[in-house]
This record gives sequence, structure tokens and C-alpha cells, in this order.
Amino acid sequence: MDETSTQGKKTIRISLDAMGSDSAPRNEIEGAIDALRAAKNRFEVVFIGPEDEIKKVLSEYDPNGLNYSVVNATQVIGMNDSPVSALREKKDSTITVGLNLHKEKKVDAFVSAGNTGAVVSASTLMLGRLQRVSRPTIGAFFPSERGVTLLLDAGAVTDCKAHFLHEFAIMGSIYAQLIFQRDNPKIGLLNIGEEEEKGDELTKVAYKLLEKSSLNFVGNIEGRDVLQGKADVVVCDGFTGNVLLKFAESVIGVLKSKFTLYAERGLREKIWMGMMRGTLRKILKEFDYQEYGGVPLLGVKGITIIGHGGSTPKAIKNMILKADEMIQQNINERIESAMETMQTVPASAISSTT
Amino acid sequence: MDETSTQGKKTIRISLDAMGSDSAPRNEIEGAIDALRAAKNRFEVVFIGPEDEIKKVLSEYDPNGLNYSVVNATQVIGMNDSPVSALREKKDSTITVGLNLHKEKKVDAFVSAGNTGAVVSASTLMLGRLQRVSRPTIGAFFPSERGVTLLLDAGAVTDCKAHFLHEFAIMGSIYAQLIFQRDNPKIGLLNIGEEEEKGDELTKVAYKLLEKSSLNFVGNIEGRDVLQGKADVVVCDGFTGNVLLKFAESVIGVLKSKFTLYAERGLREKIWMGMMRGTLRKILKEFDYQEYGGVPLLGVKGITIIGHGGSTPKAIKNMILKADEMIQQNINERIESAMETMQTVPASAISSTT
Repeated sequence: MDETSTQGKKTIRISLDAMGSDSAPRNEIEGAIDALRAAKNRFEVVFIGPEDEIKKVLSEYDPNGLNYSVVNATQVIGMNDSPVSALREKKDSTITVGLNLHKEKKVDAFVSAGNTGAVVSASTLMLGRLQRVSRPTIGAFFPSERGVTLLLDAGAVTDCKAHFLHEFAIMGSIYAQLIFQRDNPKIGLLNIGEEEEKGDELTKVAYKLLEKSSLNFVGNIEGRDVLQGKADVVVCDGFTGNVLLKFAESVIGVLKSKFTLYAERGLREKIWMGMMRGTLRKILKEFDYQEYGGVPLLGVKGITIIGHGGSTPKAIKNMILKADEMIQQNINERIESAMETMQTVPASAISSTT
Repeated sequence: MDETSTQGKKTIRISLDAMGSDSAPRNEIEGAIDALRAAKNRFEVVFIGPEDEIKKVLSEYDPNGLNYSVVNATQVIGMNDSPVSALREKKDSTITVGLNLHKEKKVDAFVSAGNTGAVVSASTLMLGRLQRVSRPTIGAFFPSERGVTLLLDAGAVTDCKAHFLHEFAIMGSIYAQLIFQRDNPKIGLLNIGEEEEKGDELTKVAYKLLEKSSLNFVGNIEGRDVLQGKADVVVCDGFTGNVLLKFAESVIGVLKSKFTLYAERGLREKIWMGMMRGTLRKILKEFDYQEYGGVPLLGVKGITIIGHGGSTPKAIKNMILKADEMIQQNINERIESAMETMQTVPASAISSTT
């Protein structure tokens, strides 16, 4: 954490909430070490959490030569803590300390598998919003025929106005260009029918905004189309997006338990399932959120990546590598300039709702 | 269709849109014959559609001794027709003719696998609403640990007010009592968190209404809980419900195609998948909407059951048997009396929004 640059090129620093996941700090440490090794120390990982505990676990992993540091934070915001009161009461929490470092530009990103509500609130309040962004938005990844689809918003903004969806579409389009490397990403509007006139009050207006925009808008996307990859980015209100994301995440667990129950029926079934396990795992793998690591919070003045409480070391590793990619791609600069050129709603209309 | 009663007991008559499904009228005829045989002619099936075509296909199935009749209807509202203009223009459509018979009390139910929007609109306009019901609602069935969960609304009412959700809950509770045979059914509110204060503007108010009601309200149900069976009835706005239903229906198809793709990788994989096919089918079966037949439209002055365009004969059969059950249970009388005793919102507030 001492030198800020070598040879004029700034070292990228990624702060990691070491106490976020259900298996913290072990999964965080293992994931970070894997990320540093995979990236050949291209960036520095700054562990945020109880210094002694982190150093003790780190020592088990032979971290010599790896580019890391530890910043002490004595408190943890639990999964069941209320975000607002926890942020007020726990001033030395990993989330507050990590985001403070980011706000002070001592790190370039903040990665956490902790309390999603707390990370979203603290990022929005402490880092602030990018220019012309009314509401920061959480993304979610869905597997699709084209590889992966980004759904925005997955729960940050429950009551949306139509121009929020337009802004989500702009931010999502930039993300898909830079991170999915898709030219002219296809933007879809989550809706209950294919035709333009379908939908609720929100989507009927949002359709018109998206149609008039310079985005590559491909029209309405129904629930059944999400996994088909008809769009690279699908926008919706955060209520619907959150329900859909959590439902999708649960399907894989339910299927796994059905297979397990089946295996318990008898010896023959047990042998069958034992033989099939590897195949099933391969097929179900792409539906498993662990593969995607965490999801980005887009629209804040910084890089925040949020992971699931059940994040594995692999998920943590992927989150860190994704943060590095977003930093290198200067995603926020690109979002601000896109917001400036693409915004079709007058600034007055935006500011009145922020 | 001639005599209306024998020995004082009214014969139950169920009208069936013979041209609704993608494989009409064959799937409808096969399903109806299976239903009549299973129910030992307890009710009469009234086929609605082109008389000659129906009689011709019927003759292939040896329908002698079965309790059926045919009412001619020369037009069909297609899946891609706009409901409102199709209902205006096609006065002799199966949907209009069938619902007219129901309105005139010549039949006790209408069953269709046709254009959902047209069936919902025509049922609401032609049959009218039950007393104190602001909006009729479409149900959807989700498999769950407790067998099955009814989700309301699945797409009839996109922009909801909180008291609509309360009404859906009352109707769903009666349905679960009479048809699922569950005592004191558990009612859940689809939401984005477990805690009372979570949600959007709609669900925050709906939570309070449900909490104050005499229903067995078990609180918020997250997307991940839908398949767990935490509630017998889950209420939500029709936008979210429709997106969730269509997504859920698509998952099974996507998984099947993944398994098929896997089998195409090579001979070994092909043999594996061939051996596993039966097992997979058994496990995936309960996720298959065909097993549930159709879904009820609750809140209209009549019994309307709506099926998927892809309905199999088995689905059609289940829809007819379900209609018979709903008629026998006098579900609408029970809903009206529950609406009267349970309604907590003043009548003035209701009528101002209808």
C-alpha cells in the first residue's frame, strides 16, 4: 500500500472485503491468491478485515512473492443486518473501510461477497453517482445460447421510471461492449409480450425511449426468451429482476436435490446417479452462478463488484479478475461519455427525480 | 345439449374450444374423450368449432356412448391475433361462441388452449366479474416441496394496486382449500426480501393489508422460495408473475436441449443419455407445465380454464376434469362469500379503481 506508482504506471489496487462470504476469510484468501497467480501479480489485492486473522490464514497458503497488503477493519456487517443501521453503527466495518479507501482513491475497486444491500447503499452514498446517472444498478448474469446475458436491474431500484431503464440500457451496452466484447450489443426490454403495445405502464413508456435511442434496441424480451440469448443486455425494474434472478438461482439447487432424492430410492438408482454425476455436473454447470463470480454495480464513481454469500474461492477469483478488467477498460469514463451523447431525456426531467 | 336436467339433478356441461391448441382439434378431441372415460360420463363435453371437421375427427376415436355434443363455430382467433380486435371482428369464433353459451348458462364452464389474452378479455367482458372482485386474475402452478403452489396473478393485471393483491389472496385461498384440499392455506407475498419493510411501493402496502386480513398470511416469499413450497398461494402483480411463469416454463426446455446437445458429442455420450432418458424424464416431469393442464381465471362469473397452445391430450383432459371439480365445489359462491366477509378495504375505495 506504500508506493502509488512505479515507472509512471500506476499499480492497480483492488480492495477485497475479506469477511464477506459465508466461509470468510478462507474463501476470500484462497480466491485472491488464485487471482494474483493467474494475473501474475499485475495488480495488488488489499485485504480488508481483522489483520491478525487474515495474516494467520494467509500464512497457510505460502503467499510469499504475491502482491498483496492488509488493511485492518474490526467489524463485519452480517447478512441479516439492516444495511442502513449497520452502516451507521459499524463505522469500522470491512465495507465502510474498503469503500473509504476507494473514495480516497487509494484503491481502484472494491470487491465484496457480503451484505448486498449494505454494499449497494454504501457504494452509492460514499462513492457517489456518475454524471447523468439517476440510479446505480446491479447487474445479474444469465447463461444463454450466446454465452451470457446481462440483466439490469437485479434489485437496486425497485420502483423505476422509464428513463431509469433507458440509463440501465446505456450502462449495460457499454459493459457488454467492453467486458463481453460484443460489438453493438443487442438491448432488450423485459416484457410480457413481444408486441410494442404490450406491458405495464413502465415498459410501454420505456419501449418508446429505447426505440428512439441510438442503442441497438431489439424490442421486448419475454421471460421465456431470457435464456435464449435474444439480447446481450436485458433491462427491467429491480423488483422483477430480483425475483427472476433468485428464482433462477434456486432452480439448480432444486434440480440437484431431486437427483439426490432419486438416488436414495434404491441401490440401482444410486448406482445410476453415481455414474451420471460428472455428466450432470457438466451440464448444470453453466446455470450455476458461482461460475460468473460476482455482479457489477454500475453507475457509481468507482468499481464495485458484489458476490453471493456462498461464493467459492473460484467465484472470488473471478470477481477480482473482473474488477481488474473493468478498471483497465476505463468503464466509468466510457459510461459517462455515453450518457452524455446518448441521453434523450432532458436534464431537468432527470434531476427532478434524483 | 337438449335436456337440462335428469331427475332434478342438473347435468354438468363443459364447453371446450376445439380449435385452441397448436394440434387442434385432435388433441382437444383425444383429451376430451379420455376425460369422459375417466369420469364415466359424469358430465357432458360440448365441443365448440367447425362441426364437420370435429365430427370427422371424432369418428376416428369410437365415441359411441360418450356424453358429448358439438356446437358449430366457424372462426378461430389465432395465437398472434390481437385479442381486442379479433374479438370485435370474429363474432363466430370458438371463444365467443363458447363463452356466449356460458353466459346464457347453457354450459357451466369454458375450457380453451387458445389465445390467452382473448380468453381473458372475452371472459371478463362477457361473463362479468364476481361481486367485490376488482380484477379477475390468472393463476399459474409451480411445482413445490408441498406438491404445488398457485401463483396469482400470472398476467391478467399488469399494473396492480395493493388491494388487488389482497383480493387475489382471498380467491387463491379459496381455490387452495377447495381444489388443493389444504386447510387454512398459507398465503405468501412475492417480494425481494424476507423482512416486512422490503419491497417496492406496491408490496409494502400489500404486506400491511395481508397482515391485517384474516388470511393465513406467512409473509414475504422471495424468488428462491417459490419452488420450496413455503406458501400454498403466492400473490404478485401480473407483470412479475408473467415473466416468472414464462421463464420457469422455458427452463425445462433449455435443460432438455442441453442434454440432447451433450448426447451429440459422441457415441459414449449418446449411450449414456439413452440409458438415462427415462430417469431424466421422471425427474423433470414435475417441472413440466403439461402435467398441470390449464390454469384458472378466477374472479369471473363463470368457470374459465386456459391452457397452453402446446397442450397435449393429457393437458386437455386435466383441464376438463379441473373444470368439473371447480363446478362441483361451487367455487364462485365460496369466493363471493369470502370476499364479503374478508374484504378489509372499504367498498368506496374498491369501486373508485374498477
